[in-house]
Amino acid sequence: MTRPLGALAGRTAVVLLSGGLDSGTCLAMARRAGARVLALTIDYNQRHRRELDAAVTLAKAHGVLRHVIIGLDLAAFGGSALTADLPVPKRGIKSGIPVTYVPARNSIFLSVALGWAEAAGASDIVIGVNALDYSGYPDCRPEFVEAFEHLANIATRAGIEGTARFRVHSPLLRLTKAGIVRAAVEAGLDMGQTWSCYDPTPDGRHCGLCDSCRLRKKGFAEAGVPDPTDYAR
Amino acid sequence: MTRPLGALAGRTAVVLLSGGLDSGTCLAMARRAGARVLALTIDYNQRHRRELDAAVTLAKAHGVLRHVIIGLDLAAFGGSALTADLPVPKRGIKSGIPVTYVPARNSIFLSVALGWAEAAGASDIVIGVNALDYSGYPDCRPEFVEAFEHLANIATRAGIEGTARFRVHSPLLRLTKAGIVRAAVEAGLDMGQTWSCYDPTPDGRHCGLCDSCRLRKKGFAEAGVPDPTDYAR
Repeated sequence: MTRPLGALAGRTAVVLLSGGLDSGTCLAMARRAGARVLALTIDYNQRHRRELDAAVTLAKAHGVLRHVIIGLDLAAFGGSALTADLPVPKRGIKSGIPVTYVPARNSIFLSVALGWAEAAGASDIVIGVNALDYSGYPDCRPEFVEAFEHLANIATRAGIEGTARFRVHSPLLRLTKAGIVRAAVEAGLDMGQTWSCYDPTPDGRHCGLCDSCRLRKKGFAEAGVPDPTDYAR
Repeated sequence: MTRPLGALAGRTAVVLLSGGLDSGTCLAMARRAGARVLALTIDYNQRHRRELDAAVTLAKAHGVLRHVIIGLDLAAFGGSALTADLPVPKRGIKSGIPVTYVPARNSIFLSVALGWAEAAGASDIVIGVNALDYSGYPDCRPEFVEAFEHLANIATRAGIEGTARFRVHSPLLRLTKAGIVRAAVEAGLDMGQTWSCYDPTPDGRHCGLCDSCRLRKKGFAEAGVPDPTDYAR
């Protein structure tokens, strides 16, 4: 839901942190709002493992309570250019669901976040999904976030004991990529610490051509904010 | 949902297989119904790791297409006697949610199963949750299974492209433990190959006193079926 993150002041929240621009912005926003952050990164054996380093840097820079990187080898199932030996498209963003979609990824990530939140006595989860300038993924839509929040409040103690309800915060849901860049600036995020590229070059740069790089470039350009990214193309 | 598993004849289904009596029964039922089975076991760093061996034995005995054991260290979060250094209760089943509840475990397991199902082009998932003779876990209730099935059909390609809807089958949902034992006999399950105990003895036997052992004993006794289990007590 796109509730204002101000409600997180003084509260503990699990923030899903991939290391990308969107999740980095969420982390900075949550910290700026005064939340105590449990940062959760999933190492799902993704092709762009470079983003895990970015997650470590971001968690340190923003003073999280604890950062957990948990392994879950989704490459065992494949089904995506990010987890199987399939080429990452480079010719521009097409309509429809692209091959970089990872089956059920955000359901898995939110479920793991829910597990940590409940174990830690926290009721707030933050995820940087975005339904405007996005890649056509089904699990980045408002109805997905709503359905998960509904599930969370049935699947847990809250559903039986009537304790505090879980809230899934998706503050970027209705922003353009330019709006996200502006929100990142406002929240004090060093965007040079974030990593977006799905298919880094051998010398460790953003490829500049994958959908994620294209959206990143577009965001900076439309926001009129200097882009610190080192793109190969 | 408690749809008859006969609908699975000739279809590929992901079956969540912990190695316990309930999931073993689901596996045997799905195979007996003619399903091609992808068996999924999650090694969540549970105290009763012995159940993973049972899962391997069961998967082999029932001729699954593929058995994946995937690691996901929920002990990183704790919050349960199965994943943290907390004693497993031995004094009988109490009302309320016991300390062996693992936060969001079934949401996580079903999400991972959904990821495999979608990657494999399968639309059916089978889980052995049970809402009658169960341990008071919130994620074993009918409303939980319904909420997850709803989520599954929003979170995936099916939610956008209108492809086959996902179905979450929980054939044991409304059975007593005795009913599960009878269903297991009918499906040809060698129940001696299953493992239920939360807190195995050092010499590798069922403790006989934890909630899971008590429910297992009760099931066999009430069904009038000889119990092959080697209990320490």
